[in-house]
Amino acid sequence: MSKPAGFSQRCLHYAFDYQTPKTLVIPDIGVGCVFRFGQLLVLLYVVGYVCVVRKAYQETDSVISSVTTKVKGFAFTNTTDMDPRFWDVADYVIPSQGDNSFFVITNMVVTPNQTQSRCPEVPNPSTTCMDDCDCIEGHSDPRGNGIQTGLCENYSTTAKTCEVLSWCPLEIDTKLPEHALLASAENFTVLIKNSITYPKFNVHRRNILPHINSSYLKRCEFNRATDPDCPIFRLKNIVSEAGEDFKTCWIMDDLYCMFLKGGVLGIIIDWSCDLDWWAGKCYPKYSFRRLDSKHPVNNVAPGYNFRFAKYYKTQDGEETRTLIKAYGIRFDVIVFGTAGKFGIVPTIVNLGAALSILRLIPVVTDWFMLTCMRKRDRYRKQKVTNLNEDAETESVSGTSYGTH
Amino acid sequence: MSKPAGFSQRCLHYAFDYQTPKTLVIPDIGVGCVFRFGQLLVLLYVVGYVCVVRKAYQETDSVISSVTTKVKGFAFTNTTDMDPRFWDVADYVIPSQGDNSFFVITNMVVTPNQTQSRCPEVPNPSTTCMDDCDCIEGHSDPRGNGIQTGLCENYSTTAKTCEVLSWCPLEIDTKLPEHALLASAENFTVLIKNSITYPKFNVHRRNILPHINSSYLKRCEFNRATDPDCPIFRLKNIVSEAGEDFKTCWIMDDLYCMFLKGGVLGIIIDWSCDLDWWAGKCYPKYSFRRLDSKHPVNNVAPGYNFRFAKYYKTQDGEETRTLIKAYGIRFDVIVFGTAGKFGIVPTIVNLGAALSILRLIPVVTDWFMLTCMRKRDRYRKQKVTNLNEDAETESVSGTSYGTH
Amino acid sequence: MSKPAGFSQRCLHYAFDYQTPKTLVIPDIGVGCVFRFGQLLVLLYVVGYVCVVRKAYQETDSVISSVTTKVKGFAFTNTTDMDPRFWDVADYVIPSQGDNSFFVITNMVVTPNQTQSRCPEVPNPSTTCMDDCDCIEGHSDPRGNGIQTGLCENYSTTAKTCEVLSWCPLEIDTKLPEHALLASAENFTVLIKNSITYPKFNVHRRNILPHINSSYLKRCEFNRATDPDCPIFRLKNIVSEAGEDFKTCWIMDDLYCMFLKGGVLGIIIDWSCDLDWWAGKCYPKYSFRRLDSKHPVNNVAPGYNFRFAKYYKTQDGEETRTLIKAYGIRFDVIVFGTAGKFGIVPTIVNLGAALSILRLIPVVTDWFMLTCMRKRDRYRKQKVTNLNEDAETESVSGTSYGTH
Repeated sequence: MSKPAGFSQRCLHYAFDYQTPKTLVIPDIGVGCVFRFGQLLVLLYVVGYVCVVRKAYQETDSVISSVTTKVKGFAFTNTTDMDPRFWDVADYVIPSQGDNSFFVITNMVVTPNQTQSRCPEVPNPSTTCMDDCDCIEGHSDPRGNGIQTGLCENYSTTAKTCEVLSWCPLEIDTKLPEHALLASAENFTVLIKNSITYPKFNVHRRNILPHINSSYLKRCEFNRATDPDCPIFRLKNIVSEAGEDFKTCWIMDDLYCMFLKGGVLGIIIDWSCDLDWWAGKCYPKYSFRRLDSKHPVNNVAPGYNFRFAKYYKTQDGEETRTLIKAYGIRFDVIVFGTAGKFGIVPTIVNLGAALSILRLIPVVTDWFMLTCMRKRDRYRKQKVTNLNEDAETESVSGTSYGTH
Repeated sequence: MSKPAGFSQRCLHYAFDYQTPKTLVIPDIGVGCVFRFGQLLVLLYVVGYVCVVRKAYQETDSVISSVTTKVKGFAFTNTTDMDPRFWDVADYVIPSQGDNSFFVITNMVVTPNQTQSRCPEVPNPSTTCMDDCDCIEGHSDPRGNGIQTGLCENYSTTAKTCEVLSWCPLEIDTKLPEHALLASAENFTVLIKNSITYPKFNVHRRNILPHINSSYLKRCEFNRATDPDCPIFRLKNIVSEAGEDFKTCWIMDDLYCMFLKGGVLGIIIDWSCDLDWWAGKCYPKYSFRRLDSKHPVNNVAPGYNFRFAKYYKTQDGEETRTLIKAYGIRFDVIVFGTAGKFGIVPTIVNLGAALSILRLIPVVTDWFMLTCMRKRDRYRKQKVTNLNEDAETESVSGTSYGTH
Repeated sequence: MSKPAGFSQRCLHYAFDYQTPKTLVIPDIGVGCVFRFGQLLVLLYVVGYVCVVRKAYQETDSVISSVTTKVKGFAFTNTTDMDPRFWDVADYVIPSQGDNSFFVITNMVVTPNQTQSRCPEVPNPSTTCMDDCDCIEGHSDPRGNGIQTGLCENYSTTAKTCEVLSWCPLEIDTKLPEHALLASAENFTVLIKNSITYPKFNVHRRNILPHINSSYLKRCEFNRATDPDCPIFRLKNIVSEAGEDFKTCWIMDDLYCMFLKGGVLGIIIDWSCDLDWWAGKCYPKYSFRRLDSKHPVNNVAPGYNFRFAKYYKTQDGEETRTLIKAYGIRFDVIVFGTAGKFGIVPTIVNLGAALSILRLIPVVTDWFMLTCMRKRDRYRKQKVTNLNEDAETESVSGTSYGTH
């Protein structure tokens, strides 16, 4: 052979010679069983757990959601504190726009006809005074209701308190109505329209499913057993599914009663989908949970309330307002979910990992064969060649290599 | 050798003896080609699909976003129902604060001067009556507008309906203005300021890109072709990019026309970024989509509207309100995105998986070699040693092992 | 042996014969060291980086969050523009409901007693006119404030501008109060209640930690050093932790001063949790960041403001409004986080990948052994059998195979 030919030949050999390990077949049913059993275990894990249970072969995407809500219902109140009054959606839903969070007033402390003026503070240890010296002009107590004028005035026949500059008369929020004012709120209904997108898979869904028609939507009401797809929820049902109880509210004057003291309820919509099968199989699952803890051991700051005001102008242009401390239930529509769809990368990754584990089986079987089997020494002799020993006999074996 | 020395020697041997498989080189171009072709395929998958297409070597993070919006524009209405009226942002944007969701009124049913009083119901099958016996005092029909007083009153000269206690006069929302009241809304513009963070990579971005200066921002308007980075959007363009059409609205009195009946439009900002290259290459991509379905086969509950009220007090302290049923377009600014950056763990995982797959190639090649090749028997003899055969000749080979 | 027995035997052999590679033990401390060192490196990566640093053996889930906020504090203003006025929560927090985004007014331009009428435009190059010919009836300039009536009127003794139909008098927002009106806003406090869920792990947490009791909650205030768990924040501290400075605002009339011109501040709550250890070890970490850039090179569109109106009715039923252009700080409560918990699939995936990499070590060591070692030729001879050579000696070795 000429040299260049030899070189290109060497390259070809280098590129296309196939190097394969020499193997030894051991016809031992014990070792074979260990080996096959190990393989079976790994296979079971891959097929059973990774594929069926975990669906690890799927790529995932998170949901993007848009929610609109619309509350319906009205109430009538007739208490000693207020005039008889009819309430509709525009009165008791705040903010009026149905976002993914809406609030229904159930109780309130109303302070009408407040004006910018001066009045004595509500009595409490830090506001009571004997004379003007106890009150500092310009001082504003963070726990108080206004800026002190420096005067000490009669709050009632028995109490004197510092006068403050504020919206007067001051709100007295200690005497909260004992019975929720808008008890009928439990019978209000809310229509939740939810539109979701999985951007990676370009999948769009609504919670008004294809089989729902207008006439059904007009009369239906969500019920986990009979109408699980109806997007209209009665507040009473939401509250009771969340584990709260109305009855106890009316009977025991419960401090943590949601209708008296307010609370935050989550309307949780789970859009977890498996998009590998016919994509229509992607339904919302509703659940309800109270989000502000009423746990007896960690019950600090329960309830939910906020203040807002309606502003008016009197004939002579003076601004007055009606301050409302509103207690009620805030409903947070929380949408979450993960969609999965077959993806090559996760499949390869999980397959590769399983193959790697599968390759541990021969290692384990070898160890078992070479330590636990009766014929281990014979197996070892056949499987493992010790270079040292060979070296001793190299002169002998060397002859055969020496022939080329 | 003394025993302790032998023990430590054995340990050393155990730790540092290197056990390597004996291999057989097969200079067969067919087998070699199968082997190399298999390797090439896996390599192509790894480099091409995993690295270039999927960027599976990257760690990912989800976007955290904050949005402010500001609508600009005014309108003038002069219809038979209402006095001529000028509308500005404070009038038609609700809520006034520019959050990631804003609503522009385009049509409305206004019921002014409502007071808490009594009036006959709006006629419909369940409210018409012949005499007082048909009306039950205290009854409140969920589809009605108030609490029945038990009287049957003349609604008009032809119809008698039950009297209710409610905010009177009642709203008549059946005669919706045929032409969207605020048709000029299509010319309003909205400035969207969006600030995002990828917390894992500590990357912060705004949608007002570095190359945008104040003077450009004052005059620009988003246009996919000419001004793709301008964060000021004309509502008309958003609506038409979302596949809705204004013209058809005016011509055919379309039930699903967005400007008449309202709707929800998504302004979708995609912040997907590849942070491996110079990080500045991370731009927002805008797209627009109608979120409430107007699909002809699943057209239940289209549109978007809600009721709100403005409260006034008359001279004698009585509360009146103007009830507004507002139809309009709610714009939801939806920000999503995933940033990717080179990460060691995903790289190793994908590399490991690819190596695992790569190790399948010899298995396949061996199978090919031992079953499909012409010289398969010769290859098998050389590659595979059967312990049984050896056992028969053990007496012979045993002699050589017996020397040590 | 009978044929059927031979067939079933073959099957059994096929299934349970164990094929193991023949190996060569090389008692070379150099090669052994390379091998062990490689293994050590991979092991260190797996244990150190993958397990300890990255916790790649964990499954992850994203947080679902619900936030309520409640601002406390009041202010008193006494400027030349306005009457002395007392401000409380209902006045300065918009919207009144404490959502995950709340706005505190710090400065404003108030335009009271606006009515639907006609008035001359605010002078600027495009609105000034000489006579009626310069004004087009029905024209509405997007930069103007209303629809032109076609008349040219005296705005002041020196300027004539086109008359417009609008809410008059027009707002003049160029003379923004130089000192933030509600400077006391810095002393307001906000209570943030945050309730989170990791749905995959069914873990619920609140930011009011178990060890916080009612009395502590009444007096505490967040302080990174002394009270890191208190969920009550003083606005001053939030702003200063976000890197803004109040002092400079008052001294230099800073264009970018947050209290004068408004801004958006993120209250970022990081709920990253490791749920493998006792699950209680899952605390919120608070941080604060300004979200609207005030970066000197990219300072376009700084600040944050919006307009809203309070509507009144005069005695004779005419609607008037007070337009307020509110500057202030919008606080966005941004909750993010990832929880991790031991999962079999990610563990297997990472283990498999590590094993795959581990299997690269023999390849490297073999290469090192067969190219760099002194005895490389001897090692090669022992390890690698070249089929060709054997073929030459096949007649010889063939004899032994020929015996069966």
